[in-house]
Amino acid sequence: MRYALGVEYDGSGFKGWQQLGEQGGATVQATLQDALSSVADAPVSVVCAGRTDAGVHGECQVVHFDSDAGRAPRGWVLGTTTRLPPSVCVRWCVPVADDFHARFSARARRYRYRLLNRQVRPALYRQTLSWERRALDAGAMHRAAQALLGENDFGAFRSVQCQALHARRELQSISVLRQGEVVEVQVQANAFLHHMVRNIVGSLLLVGAGEKPEAWMGELLAQRDRTLAGPTAPPQGLVFVGPLYPAHWQLPAEVTQ
Amino acid sequence: MRYALGVEYDGSGFKGWQQLGEQGGATVQATLQDALSSVADAPVSVVCAGRTDAGVHGECQVVHFDSDAGRAPRGWVLGTTTRLPPSVCVRWCVPVADDFHARFSARARRYRYRLLNRQVRPALYRQTLSWERRALDAGAMHRAAQALLGENDFGAFRSVQCQALHARRELQSISVLRQGEVVEVQVQANAFLHHMVRNIVGSLLLVGAGEKPEAWMGELLAQRDRTLAGPTAPPQGLVFVGPLYPAHWQLPAEVTQ
Repeated sequence: MRYALGVEYDGSGFKGWQQLGEQGGATVQATLQDALSSVADAPVSVVCAGRTDAGVHGECQVVHFDSDAGRAPRGWVLGTTTRLPPSVCVRWCVPVADDFHARFSARARRYRYRLLNRQVRPALYRQTLSWERRALDAGAMHRAAQALLGENDFGAFRSVQCQALHARRELQSISVLRQGEVVEVQVQANAFLHHMVRNIVGSLLLVGAGEKPEAWMGELLAQRDRTLAGPTAPPQGLVFVGPLYPAHWQLPAEVTQ
Repeated sequence: MRYALGVEYDGSGFKGWQQLGEQGGATVQATLQDALSSVADAPVSVVCAGRTDAGVHGECQVVHFDSDAGRAPRGWVLGTTTRLPPSVCVRWCVPVADDFHARFSARARRYRYRLLNRQVRPALYRQTLSWERRALDAGAMHRAAQALLGENDFGAFRSVQCQALHARRELQSISVLRQGEVVEVQVQANAFLHHMVRNIVGSLLLVGAGEKPEAWMGELLAQRDRTLAGPTAPPQGLVFVGPLYPAHWQLPAEVTQ
């Protein structure tokens, strides 16, 4: 029996969704698998829609797993959440067809990046905000970002550790909006490269601060050279909002296209 | 020389704004005074606009203090924030007239209470959300809350430890709004009694869950009996948005009426 789960997590205390390289520390995947295995009373492995880096959060990560433990969806949700640390919970559980795949069935992924734009570092919402003290022109950032729309080679915004076979992705929407002291970037693509959102945000910050012209984003994209783009923006401002699936999988509305 | 400061804090790790009774642990006031005293190189005491309980947050608490250390406002902001733990920062500093008083000059205070209304506890934003798993009718809560408007004796919503001389307060506005899974209560009064917001929210939750009719809030108010009202809502959902002062004090817009 295959199940899909919606998973929410605060990435602050984790080394990312899964282990990359040698560094120690808990991963969200291992933590979730331990809790699910305890509920199933048998080993459970999960496959996720989108791996997140150390410190990056998940609002509705989706995973699938197989189990013949015969638990009801409500049992998976509540039993697993009870066994998870306070920074992780299971939002929902849906039985799915055997050919559903959390990663390959997803048609799009959405991310949100929030930063506090003021002289002083954040205190109250510091777990989910990054910080930029230079005054940012969010309108200029928004206009500059539109040059990235469409199917493009995003090599300019790809981490050197990225293991994807190629860098072509379809950026479906990107917006930059200011709400008081908070500047928020929302972005949706069919899929993302490693560090792609944080590298795009890091470059947009240079446009927002007036160090680079609005046209620079399009130039970066065309040059496909990571060394020309801005620095990778810090992880704590980034939230994986979630993937989107075709309606026929009958998943909750928040992850349905 | 007298100064006003805007202070932001995550109340999670604190025993409240100031020590009440015998319990140990850090208070926001003592933490702030230590940092200010270090910048001033002399003891500094602060007076706040509104004391907050253990676990309650401050978005723009206002304090005043006197110092002849001769620091520029920017020096107070940055120097103090550098000496504060990550959970506290100074948003701004303004030199004020000697007769400004953070508590007595304030004409109103604003609070916000946020709770996550779903089956599963919060994970990602758990520091600033409380949790209610029973389905809440936010519209019923909003209508019920309007019975509290105006100058009333709020004895029904007053903690037994409240030290105020009387329980008359002017409730200037109260609203309850749902945004997805989050229900938010916003409330403004000239001043608040100890636990008043959390006791109002705790009673509104019974209306929202259908356990009490909408008219119950008005009855509670009229009866002035704390033992009849709902339980005190937990602290982590509560944020002291800040006080409001008359315009002639020339404070930042966020705390000016």
